[in-house]
Amino acid sequence: MICVLTGGTGGAKFVDGLRQVMPPEEITLVVNTGDDLMWWGLYVSPDIDSITYVLSGLLSRERGWGVKGDTFLCLQAMGQLGEPTWFHTGDRDLAVHLLRSRLLAEGKTLSEATSVICDKLAVKAHILPMSDSRVETRVDTPIGELSFEEYFVQRWYQDPVNSVRFAGASDAEPAPGVIDAIVSAHAVLIAPSNPVTSIGPILAVPGIREALCRAQGKVIAVSPIVANAAVAGPAGILMAAEGLPCSIAGIARAYEDFLDVLIADTRDAGAAEALRGNGLRVQCTQTIMRSAEDKMALAKTVLSFAAAGLLSDKPAARAAAPFGSVND
Amino acid sequence: MICVLTGGTGGAKFVDGLRQVMPPEEITLVVNTGDDLMWWGLYVSPDIDSITYVLSGLLSRERGWGVKGDTFLCLQAMGQLGEPTWFHTGDRDLAVHLLRSRLLAEGKTLSEATSVICDKLAVKAHILPMSDSRVETRVDTPIGELSFEEYFVQRWYQDPVNSVRFAGASDAEPAPGVIDAIVSAHAVLIAPSNPVTSIGPILAVPGIREALCRAQGKVIAVSPIVANAAVAGPAGILMAAEGLPCSIAGIARAYEDFLDVLIADTRDAGAAEALRGNGLRVQCTQTIMRSAEDKMALAKTVLSFAAAGLLSDKPAARAAAPFGSVND
Repeated sequence: MICVLTGGTGGAKFVDGLRQVMPPEEITLVVNTGDDLMWWGLYVSPDIDSITYVLSGLLSRERGWGVKGDTFLCLQAMGQLGEPTWFHTGDRDLAVHLLRSRLLAEGKTLSEATSVICDKLAVKAHILPMSDSRVETRVDTPIGELSFEEYFVQRWYQDPVNSVRFAGASDAEPAPGVIDAIVSAHAVLIAPSNPVTSIGPILAVPGIREALCRAQGKVIAVSPIVANAAVAGPAGILMAAEGLPCSIAGIARAYEDFLDVLIADTRDAGAAEALRGNGLRVQCTQTIMRSAEDKMALAKTVLSFAAAGLLSDKPAARAAAPFGSVND
Repeated sequence: MICVLTGGTGGAKFVDGLRQVMPPEEITLVVNTGDDLMWWGLYVSPDIDSITYVLSGLLSRERGWGVKGDTFLCLQAMGQLGEPTWFHTGDRDLAVHLLRSRLLAEGKTLSEATSVICDKLAVKAHILPMSDSRVETRVDTPIGELSFEEYFVQRWYQDPVNSVRFAGASDAEPAPGVIDAIVSAHAVLIAPSNPVTSIGPILAVPGIREALCRAQGKVIAVSPIVANAAVAGPAGILMAAEGLPCSIAGIARAYEDFLDVLIADTRDAGAAEALRGNGLRVQCTQTIMRSAEDKMALAKTVLSFAAAGLLSDKPAARAAAPFGSVND
């Protein structure tokens, strides 16, 4: 089993590659729920949705979120009723929000609702919310504290950021299966997701960071920062707000207590060399995922490092076999 | 002010005519909510929706329900998630259900939620649910008791009907404004709706039947039965189950304690003559509404009888003036 910590569009792209190069039923995903919001009275979990759509083949790859080929007539009608429309919920997409909301209203946990939806969509990988408790990412800005989706989607991450906090985290528990998935996995992969608001909320749930420190497999992160800039989104701004340099060194520092291997882009070869001086294993490869081939290639490479880590006294070429061949 | 008791597709057609021949702001509609259902976790009020769509010009006249030009992608996606799809909720239509459900969840009454939605859709007529309490039409059949929508939509009203009851009615109160609208109206019109399951639930709310008996204006019903058959739907079956003949005499009996004028189809001229023998005023006109012109003509005719009733000691021709001219 491989365990993947993920959130955001970078995470979804990485998982899209991964599901194509290894059996999905051997993947457990621990997904950020800090972005979850009540929208039109429905419970929406953007990162769980994206991962569910990726794994069911429904994700719109053009947009990177929502259902491919979706329409937005309900959204348009909501606008005509004077309701907010800044969070773009498609007509097909609404079905998942409706079903999840009904299951939650009936008393099911978010884990249970996620499992029902995954079964219905024939998702074979195991999607776990980081927690069944409500943990809300709050972004403090000069205009006040915003939810992550308000900051990111409604306001296009244009506000300066003072700090980020995870409301409710201290009282939250990891969802059932999360700790075991991390501790017992052959390898734990941290997707190229924003370390502050995609992976940060997961790490803020008491017990998860400790589980990563005692994980039996190697913990391998793919850097979402390439050449001192975020591949997409506000990772750089948010890292700066949290006192982390916007560089692979910043990523290494965010995960320093549990990280075994950092996978950086080949453009960061120099920075990688400097980091290695500090004792961390840093591997460079092509990390930008533009095409389906890029995604699969990155997934294969990461899995080969995972296999090498697993069987560190054996040659990497042999160790790579269970995870498929490596193409670079 | 004119007060209209309505429900079902016959009622919606009648209101569609009425709104075009008199100022909508002078119409108060008391609408059946016995068909209301929880659907996909949302509160759906089919008759309030139809009347709202009629009055905002959004109703699909082809289907007689829902929003014109609507699509059904969410419905399709719900089917793929294994959820029921027998109640056809369109993508645009969903917006109203979402908004109403949110307003109810926030503690608003059905009257208040209806008023908000009407404001947003620039509906000038006053739509009142018959009650803010839950009154549920239950249809007893050999396979068990069904909700009205289960009986009517899901099972195509194919089941024999033993009886009909209105669960919750005895504890219900008329919604704010209902009694006053009935008592003080210049005329109360009963739309050509099913007397058992469209008008019956309204009459089952304590106080409404009494208000009709003491209404200051004339109470005028348009028969939904023509030539001993329902114009559409299961009215005949349901009337038989309630011991009412499927005829204009059955309609007269259903409303006998408060009815001043019964408007029957010209095809029922013979039956009308027999009824007149019992002291009821019965007027015959063309009541089948196939075209927009039919709807307006029926509305004008009914209003002319209302005006005649209002000013019974004056010639009908003069009395008709405030309501527009009569075309037959």
